[in-house]
Amino acid sequence: MIGMQEALAEARAAAARAEVPVGAVLLGPDGAILAADGNRVEERHDASAHAEMLVLRRAGVLLGTPRLIGCELVVTLEPCAMCAAAIAGFRIRRVVFGAYDPKGGGIEHGARVFEAPGSLHRPEVVGGVRESECAALLRDFFQQRR
Amino acid sequence: MIGMQEALAEARAAAARAEVPVGAVLLGPDGAILAADGNRVEERHDASAHAEMLVLRRAGVLLGTPRLIGCELVVTLEPCAMCAAAIAGFRIRRVVFGAYDPKGGGIEHGARVFEAPGSLHRPEVVGGVRESECAALLRDFFQQRR
Repeated sequence: MIGMQEALAEARAAAARAEVPVGAVLLGPDGAILAADGNRVEERHDASAHAEMLVLRRAGVLLGTPRLIGCELVVTLEPCAMCAAAIAGFRIRRVVFGAYDPKGGGIEHGARVFEAPGSLHRPEVVGGVRESECAALLRDFFQQRR
Repeated sequence: MIGMQEALAEARAAAARAEVPVGAVLLGPDGAILAADGNRVEERHDASAHAEMLVLRRAGVLLGTPRLIGCELVVTLEPCAMCAAAIAGFRIRRVVFGAYDPKGGGIEHGARVFEAPGSLHRPEVVGGVRESECAALLRDFFQQRR
């Protein structure tokens, strides 16, 4: 799946910064990578600095619009409710994610944002891509910190 | 209610910039205003640049932490699912909002983020403060643009 390799590299780089290892890339309508980043919550003192939010915001600035029509988001972990709602706000065409997140996810779990009445936009969703690699990164990170 | 006057002023300033008129302030644990801003979605080409997100992020940088323990958010409109989940992520103690938003709200409507299983944190919520003034700003804005 285009982009997941790069998202995994961003997740590993986040772990090296002592951030929860989640990485994301934003693909333009032509499939080219517009932005790639990992979690930066602790570094920026910003609870909203999830990998997804960072690449969405960067792509908006690059394309000069808050509506990223035809773009695709690839991320190593199921997005939380904040990121899912931002994905709808930015009008992302498709979301591809790696590991499922029964505790913190907001697409297939929890608030299930795209299924809620009033969701601005419902992107196509593909979950479980390279799931075991994505999940292993998170598992190893939390085991080392215990 | 402390902060709503300033949040209304930020909402009016947003309207003057042709942004959807929503304003927010972030109060520190002592009740002092740490940050105040309005919507900047169009200006920044950023669908996540809601008033709430901007003041949360600014306060995180000011206080040097992504966990705004004891802080309160005051906003003229019921936060959407993105902002509600960010409010939980930043561990805000209390949310005070003006107008209810049956279409786009994510606290009392839609995804009802704080009631979802797995919500990180559930702040105290007070809705309907200076509701008619807050709602009138939005109504006038959308009427003028039709």
